[in-house]
Amino acid sequence: MTGKIRVDMTVSLDGFVAGPDDGPDAPMGAGGFRLFNWLDKRNDPGPSGEVYAEAMATRALISGRRTYELAGHWGGDHHDGVPIFVLTHQVPDQTPPGTVRFVTDVAECAALARAAVGDGVAMVHGAGAAQALLRAGEVDELDLHVVPVLLGQGRRLFDGLPAEPVEFELVQPREASDVLHLRYRIKPSTE
Amino acid sequence: MTGKIRVDMTVSLDGFVAGPDDGPDAPMGAGGFRLFNWLDKRNDPGPSGEVYAEAMATRALISGRRTYELAGHWGGDHHDGVPIFVLTHQVPDQTPPGTVRFVTDVAECAALARAAVGDGVAMVHGAGAAQALLRAGEVDELDLHVVPVLLGQGRRLFDGLPAEPVEFELVQPREASDVLHLRYRIKPSTE
Repeated sequence: MTGKIRVDMTVSLDGFVAGPDDGPDAPMGAGGFRLFNWLDKRNDPGPSGEVYAEAMATRALISGRRTYELAGHWGGDHHDGVPIFVLTHQVPDQTPPGTVRFVTDVAECAALARAAVGDGVAMVHGAGAAQALLRAGEVDELDLHVVPVLLGQGRRLFDGLPAEPVEFELVQPREASDVLHLRYRIKPSTE
Repeated sequence: MTGKIRVDMTVSLDGFVAGPDDGPDAPMGAGGFRLFNWLDKRNDPGPSGEVYAEAMATRALISGRRTYELAGHWGGDHHDGVPIFVLTHQVPDQTPPGTVRFVTDVAECAALARAAVGDGVAMVHGAGAAQALLRAGEVDELDLHVVPVLLGQGRRLFDGLPAEPVEFELVQPREASDVLHLRYRIKPSTE
């Protein structure tokens, strides 16, 4: 029994996960924190609370290195002490904090995460990690939280992918007043 | 009384309106015709039929030059003989067919279309025209038909916009089995 891998990302209507000029001093780029307003309702009843609870019920996290650094390593514990697999090109010398484990190979990272979650879900944070896993064909679901703003410029969630169409199906749209939560599941290949 | 301008476009989940390598011989690019499958249901009852009927009830069309050429000029009549305003950098020498009028200035194009539709809606086709109108602040609504496929590469709907956030609100999500229809309305500026 291996688990599912679910990309979980908040995006602007034009597909950005951060505004322009993001970096250590401006982790979400110019104007990018707008994307997280909906999280003010993460503990309320309603669609946003539901979606957030589902994210917190995932049993592992896969993160890109950039997201990991920008998030201050989550103090080594993203939620409930679940394993954290950080995809990176270069493993740092320091011992990683908490449940963090660095992985350089995408397929290995996916396999470790699937094994860790049993029949549960591993959540993916970070556009870089999402793109790497998509390129490797290792994404089962997309949880997109679509914020009704055009940022105009920034870091795109879907970028640098090959010109090979991948079919999904919309499982569950959930509308909140300030965000649209869309869950897509990959279609089984008919080959 | 002036009318509204509504961008009406079918996009992939990753925001493309055509696949890669589009051109006269492949107007939708590689794999891009996948985006139009939902139009098979345009005359059926249900959300896709409803959405299509609303598009056909618009009282003017604004099109980019590229879309206009790729569509074979619609024989000079897109639907019901409504005025067609084609945004172009260079007005061709030939007399335009049917109700077509070429316009080089974006603000003038928007004003002509608004005047033409009374209290109705002018529909915008083409990523280039949509981007020009967005840059000019002339878009009131977005009708996005989101097809659950990642194309990976292609022509983006939202591209080349300035890094100036524009807020919308989701008016009406309508879910069909193979496409999600989303209508967004621009938020009145609070300035």
